[in-house]
This record gives sequence, C-alpha cells and structure tokens, in this order.
Amino acid sequence: MFESAEIGNRLDKAAYDREMPRLRARLIQLQTELINRRSTEVLIVVNGVVGAGRSETAHLIGELFDPRQVEVVPDLPPNDEECCRPPMWRFWRSLPAKGRIGVYFAGWYGPPMEDRLKRRRDKAQFDMELEAIKRFEQMVVDEGALVIKFWFHLSAKEQKKRLEALEADNETSWRVTKEDWKRAGAYRRIRNIAERTVRETSTGVAPWFVIEGLDRSYREIAVARTLVDEISRVIAAQDEATEQKPKLPAPRKAARRRGDPPPLTHLGTTNVLSALDLGLRLSKDDYKQALPHWQGRLARLSREKALRHHGVIALFEGYDAAGKGGAIRRVSEALDPRFYRIVPIAAPSDEERQHPYLWRFWRHMPPRGRLAIFDRSWYGRVLVERVDHLLAEPVWRRAYAEINELEQELVDSDMIIAKFFMVVSPEEQLRRFRERQKVAFKRYKITPDDWHNREKRADYDDAVIEMIARTSTELAPWCLVEGEDKNYARIKVLRTLVETIEKKLG
Amino acid sequence: MFESAEIGNRLDKAAYDREMPRLRARLIQLQTELINRRSTEVLIVVNGVVGAGRSETAHLIGELFDPRQVEVVPDLPPNDEECCRPPMWRFWRSLPAKGRIGVYFAGWYGPPMEDRLKRRRDKAQFDMELEAIKRFEQMVVDEGALVIKFWFHLSAKEQKKRLEALEADNETSWRVTKEDWKRAGAYRRIRNIAERTVRETSTGVAPWFVIEGLDRSYREIAVARTLVDEISRVIAAQDEATEQKPKLPAPRKAARRRGDPPPLTHLGTTNVLSALDLGLRLSKDDYKQALPHWQGRLARLSREKALRHHGVIALFEGYDAAGKGGAIRRVSEALDPRFYRIVPIAAPSDEERQHPYLWRFWRHMPPRGRLAIFDRSWYGRVLVERVDHLLAEPVWRRAYAEINELEQELVDSDMIIAKFFMVVSPEEQLRRFRERQKVAFKRYKITPDDWHNREKRADYDDAVIEMIARTSTELAPWCLVEGEDKNYARIKVLRTLVETIEKKLG
Repeated sequence: MFESAEIGNRLDKAAYDREMPRLRARLIQLQTELINRRSTEVLIVVNGVVGAGRSETAHLIGELFDPRQVEVVPDLPPNDEECCRPPMWRFWRSLPAKGRIGVYFAGWYGPPMEDRLKRRRDKAQFDMELEAIKRFEQMVVDEGALVIKFWFHLSAKEQKKRLEALEADNETSWRVTKEDWKRAGAYRRIRNIAERTVRETSTGVAPWFVIEGLDRSYREIAVARTLVDEISRVIAAQDEATEQKPKLPAPRKAARRRGDPPPLTHLGTTNVLSALDLGLRLSKDDYKQALPHWQGRLARLSREKALRHHGVIALFEGYDAAGKGGAIRRVSEALDPRFYRIVPIAAPSDEERQHPYLWRFWRHMPPRGRLAIFDRSWYGRVLVERVDHLLAEPVWRRAYAEINELEQELVDSDMIIAKFFMVVSPEEQLRRFRERQKVAFKRYKITPDDWHNREKRADYDDAVIEMIARTSTELAPWCLVEGEDKNYARIKVLRTLVETIEKKLG
Repeated sequence: MFESAEIGNRLDKAAYDREMPRLRARLIQLQTELINRRSTEVLIVVNGVVGAGRSETAHLIGELFDPRQVEVVPDLPPNDEECCRPPMWRFWRSLPAKGRIGVYFAGWYGPPMEDRLKRRRDKAQFDMELEAIKRFEQMVVDEGALVIKFWFHLSAKEQKKRLEALEADNETSWRVTKEDWKRAGAYRRIRNIAERTVRETSTGVAPWFVIEGLDRSYREIAVARTLVDEISRVIAAQDEATEQKPKLPAPRKAARRRGDPPPLTHLGTTNVLSALDLGLRLSKDDYKQALPHWQGRLARLSREKALRHHGVIALFEGYDAAGKGGAIRRVSEALDPRFYRIVPIAAPSDEERQHPYLWRFWRHMPPRGRLAIFDRSWYGRVLVERVDHLLAEPVWRRAYAEINELEQELVDSDMIIAKFFMVVSPEEQLRRFRERQKVAFKRYKITPDDWHNREKRADYDDAVIEMIARTSTELAPWCLVEGEDKNYARIKVLRTLVETIEKKLG
C-alpha cells in the first residue's frame, strides 16, 4: 500500500516556485470562505513515520492559512482529567469551532496505534478501536466537518539516511532525538500497523492521503493541493445542496405517518405511555419513611470504594411540570456536593452551536467516581428539536444511532447510566401550571414555551414513544416515571438510581 | 468575633412561614434582573464549621433561585491539571458568567485554610495568601462581580450535640462521616484560623457574614435576607452610576495630557521608543548562521529536565506588520509541538465578555513544563482598548496594577515570562503594508484596522511608553525589539527567550 510512496517523488524548485504561490492564494480564499460560512470545521490529521516531515507539515499548514484560525493539537499522553474519562473525550473537547482548522498530530489515531505498537492491545481490540474511530469520523462529517488525513511515508532506507543527514549537520542535529531513533528501529512493525490503519479507516467520508516525505518541495505541493481539492470540494457540495433543496418548512406532521419503523402508536391500541398507570400513588407517611431510607442508601453507595471506578450519569427528561426538578433535588440532597454536579441543558450557546451537537454534552461528562445529573440531555434532539421542526428529519433520525453509540462508548468505559422520563397527564400538568402561577416565587417557571409544548402534546407523545423504542437499550434502559403523584415519582427515581448503581457494582 | 453567633438565635415557624415566601419572591425578581442585565456575576462563598449547615445552605440557594442559573463549585482537591498551574487558576476557570450565580464550598479560602490547619503554612505565609485573596476579590468586584461570603458558626458544644443527634436518628445517621468527627475534634484550631481569616478578609468590597447555624429557620432567613440586601444593593448602585455619568464618548485625546504620571514622552526630549536604534541590522549570512544556533539552543533547552518545573510564557505585542508572526514562527519551528501552544488573542467571544477581562487569558496559562506563545495578550487593555477609547480611563488605568499582580502571581508559581514588543517605523510599516497587498496570499493580513491604527500612531506611542514604564518589572521585564530589519529582530527574540529561560534555570 505504501509502495507508491517509495518511488522517489521529487519536484524541482522551478515548478515549486511556479505553483506554490497560486496554491497559497487559493487556500487563503478558501479559508475566508470557511470563516464566512461558519458551517464547516476542518480536521487535519498529520501522521506518518519519523523523518517524513510531520512537524514541518504542521508548520507549513500554519503558514498556508491565517494561523490565528488554526489550532494545533499535539499528541500528548492523556492527563488525569482525561484518563478518568472515555478515550474520545479529549478529542471531543479539542474540536475546533466551525470555520476554524484543527491540525492533529496523530490525533485520535495516536493512542490506539501506540497501544498496538507497545502490544497493550491485540489485533481484535485494535480493530474495534478503529471501528469506533470510523463511527466518530462519520458523525463529525455528518455534522458538517471536513476530515483530511495525511500519512507521510519514507522507506526504511530513506528514513535512516534522513536522520543521519540531520545529525551530521550541526545546524540541524538538534532536531533528532533518541526517541526518533527508537522509532526508526521499530520501522517494520510501525509500518504494518500503519498499513492496517490506513486500509481499515480510509472511508468515503474520511480517506487517508499517503504522501512520500522524501522531497520537501514535492511534499509541500502535495499537501497544499490536497487541501485545495478537499476544501473546495465540500464548499461546492454545500452550494449544490443549498441549490437543490431550498429550506422548506418541514411539513407540519412530518414525524407522523413517515418514519421507519412507524411510531409504535400506530401498531397497536396501546403504547409505552398509555400503558403507564398514572394512578400510582404513595401516602405521605410511606413517603416520609421511604425518603430517608433511599437517600441513605444512595449516600452510603456514593461513598463506596467500588464506585471510584465508575462515572455515573443520571439523566432526566419529561413533560413540563412533571417533577424533574423536585426529583433531582431529592437525589442531590442526599449527596456530598463533591460527588455530584447538576448539568442543566438549555439552548446551546453560540460557541456550542459551532460544534457537532454532542460536543456540548461531552464537555460535562463526569470523571470516574463522580455523578453528573443531566437536567434535560442529548435527547432534546429527538424530542423538542424534532417536534418543533428545528431539524430536517434525516438529521434527527440519524441521532438515534449517534446517541446509542455515545451511550455504548460511555458504558464501555465503565460509566453507569440511569435515564428517567417523567410522565404527567395533560390534566395534572395544567393544574400544576395554574398552581405555579399563583405562587410568586414559582411563577418564573411558567414560560410561553410551556403552553406551546402543551399544544403539541400529541406530537410529543409520538416522539417519546419512538425515542423509547429506539434508545432503550439493555446497556442504558429508560425508566418511565409515573409523575402524577410526586411522592411516588421521587421514590421511584431514587430507588431506580440506587438499584442501577448496585447492579453495576454487583 | 464569633460570640455574637453563639447566643442561640432561633426563629419560630410562624415567623419563618410569614417571611420566607416574600423573600423568595423578591430573590426571583432580583435574579431575573441579574439575568436581564448580564452585568454582574454573583459569587457566594459558603464556609463554616461542620454541622453548621453549609450543604443545607448550598441546597437552599439552589431552591431560592432558578437552579439552572446557579453553579455549585465543591471544594475538591486540585487535579493534576490544576496542580501544575498557579493556585488561583482553577477558581478563575470556575467563575460564572455575568448574570449567573456561583456557589463555592470554601472556594478560594479552602486551600489556604486547609494548608494552615495541617500546618503546611506558617502564619506569615498564610497572611500572604489572604492578601492575594483580597486582591483577587477586589479585582473581580472592580470588574462587576458581587462577592457574598457566609461563615456558619456553632459553638463546640452545639456542634457536638448536632452531630450526636444526627447519628442517633437512623434517618439522618448517614449524613455524619468520620471526617466530620475529625474536624469537630480540631474545633479550637479551626476556630482560630477562621477568626483570623474572617477578620483579615472582611473588606469593604467583600465582607463576611457570620451566621449562627444552630436553628435552621433562623439560618435560612438570615441567608435569604443577606442575599436580598446584597443583590439589591449592587443593582441600585448600578442604576445610580448610569444615571450620574451618562456614557459620553471619551475625549479624543483623553490619554494625552492627563494621566498620572504624565506619559514619559512629555518629560524629556527622548523616550524608550525614540531611544531605539531602528538602524540595527543583521546580514543574510550572519542570520543564516545565527538562526540554527539559537533555535538549536532553544530546542535543547526545551528538553531539559529542569524546565519541567517551570511554565514559560512568551508574549508578543507590537505595531502591525512589525514582524510578530515571523518571529513567533522562528520560535515554534525549533520546538516539539508537544512542548508549546500558540495562543492568538483576538476580540473576546461573548462567553469571554461575560467574565472579568483576565479570565480569557487564565484559560490559556501553560502548565509546568510547557510554553505558551501569546500572539497579543492582556496588554491589549492598555494598548488598543485604551487608544480606541473602548474603556473609561479609570478602567484601563486600573489594569496596570492588575497586570502586574497577574504576572507576580505567575512568577510566584515558577512561571518564566518573556515579553516582546516589536517596533517598526511608520515608513517601514507602510512599505510592508503595500508589499503585502501586492502578494495575493498575504493580502488578507491587511485590514482596515491596520490603516486605522496607523493614523493613531501618536496615541499608540504614548500608550506603549506608559505601558513599558508601568509594567516592565524586574520579575517580567519588557524586551523592546527593533523590528526594522526582520533578521535582526528574529534573532534578538530567539536570543532573549533563550537567555531568559537559562537565567531562571540558573
């Protein structure tokens, strides 16, 4: 696979001097285009063998573009904030905003390839990690990113020659480190791992560009050309897309009728919502007994050694006034403030808008040994954003799979996930709205949105039913909470959370 | 000092039920006011002895306000990202945005009091840390924050009674931990440290409120009342301020003429700028020799063990087209990308606008063993923001002291700071502007701002001269770089950076 990059490609200075200025001018144009559109972030992965010009290329890219719009992400070993979170967390955090360019040394390929090199992973594990990478790249591309991956290659012979040459000249000798020679020693093995990686992860959405690193002029022109091709490609594609389908308002009932499979509501006479017994209640006395019991169990559980190896996510969705806030408070009351964080999810900030939609949730993922309580969550995408037609249908449809992968990834790194959906009947909801409006310090809780959402209850129900159907996995099942009676709901939430954690700790 | 909080303050339920709803309604009003104005962030420090109701109060505050606008910051031990940075870094990072409320358990008082308790600090060191805290609080208040500090007190006797009572009742026994009893054991010493802290740091801008924790009703009303008083106080103060001095455009020449002391330009016939010899040059050959020499020294230096204990900041300011970018590139070329980060400073994002102005720079402070290259910096406040009258004079005047304190703090935690100001004559600058406009891929570098700044050169000179006079400390001296000849300038930057680091490593 690398043979084509061992044929001694060179480019004479004249040709270089002719072409480079044109390419640079074009790249600046394209970057301006990117900045104006704010619709695409460019992720450039720079990888390859020692001495093939990785750092030089990173610097080159800094010169080709306006460097103030470029972020260089080195391949550092993860620090402890990163160690205690899922492997992809640090890369999610490092994503550049739309319109900006991120240059990644090795990037998300660094850790798995390094682990494989050091034999900390076997082939099978390695392939699984490559699969996860493919899903990640697919997702960011679906969200508008452009991923350009360079692999700079040198034959073993050329690599040795290059390093020796650099060392001989005492103007450049400082560029060669012991580490470089170590890697050169492992050339064969590194090459094999690289072959596998490049083969497995050269997808349609994010192919690898293998470039011969021997001759600087050739390398730089090759890089610049690739950048021009790729960036102009996405820009052209965007223009086409906007021409072809002008943004029509999504049909009022889009979610209904269509949808594969059709919402369960239409399959039978009953569904997960209508099947709920909203009559369930808990007497004041039983509540007074149960509350300290379950809060105590939760508190003790939170101090258990075993929990230090698990992050916990308690995620709350539900109808307005279904009692999310009250339930969350009963949970947090029981806990040492050092143990938990409440993450209220409102409309995204414009910084958040300029990243793939999961980015703003990755920011708040708890480390091992901590609990994050999400007051609303990534499910907004398939609930409010779907119901209010804020998204084209394909986009929120795609989200089901993306969410399942996200939760899969979290569970893979020993995260415990409890998902609660609080249900209240339209009648009880109305009663609570009115009640809130009576009390001065509760009035602020009622907004026009709440009334708006009430009208869309039917669409909401459909969205909820499909959400449950598609995202209630055995890894992260949904707990539907009968919220008609607050006492009952609060205890059910506490009990379920405790039992979910206990189950995982075994 | 705490005697007044040992007199057994109680409040009967009736009085509580009468007053609390009013207070809550008022607080929600005030919070809405805060959110609409976006001019004030509220920092609430919750501290005190065990069993006096700290956590309960944090929860209370969450209920008194819209919890989605409140961030609770627990007192965790610093993680390694935090350990390798100045002590205040984590608190800067945790500052809530304007309009929001941050509730800090112990907050910035936690670490020093803990260190003092464990005898890791002597009285003198402890007092110094309290001084630093006072400066920090002064700064955030100057920037619009409201700081409310609660100390919850119990007599030793009452504390013991409280813990025993909690333990006796098996509904609440889980609330008491071993740690609690350990602290109760150290009551006397903790009380003394608290006395000193509360006395030393009860300033006009951020006084302590000492509240007796014995009776819950009393405590909660006391807290709620304090919050109402304090928040309405700042809001009233803001209204007054806006009424008194309506925003007039600052007089064209404000910076000139006034200013204490008057800009050095007016003292003598010469000044630090006019004293520069812009004739200094370096021949192409000398440059070709010097560049690899100094890059090599810098590269080797960057790999030295000793450097792992020092963060390095290389900060670049200068006139447009004075060669900042080129100099920065010559520095970064020499370095392993894992060692450095380039931090380009543009106009603040709106997230950044909603914090004290130093916040956006604290975000990017390098950890020990790393280099951060600031392309423009916190000096923008006393340069462009002053010259373009983006700030009232008192605000940028205040900045000199704030900046010196910032750099003091950085140096105190073994940071190495090299500050470069690149100077180019108006004539040469014009030549470079024109040159850039000729080259397609350089044209983007020339913006209307550049021409605008040229016109204000005189004001700029004054600002620069005063900046040098006020912020060139022996801890962090300015290096003025004669930028007329790029070769000379680049080598001077490299050499100065190398020598600054070597000097510190000794």
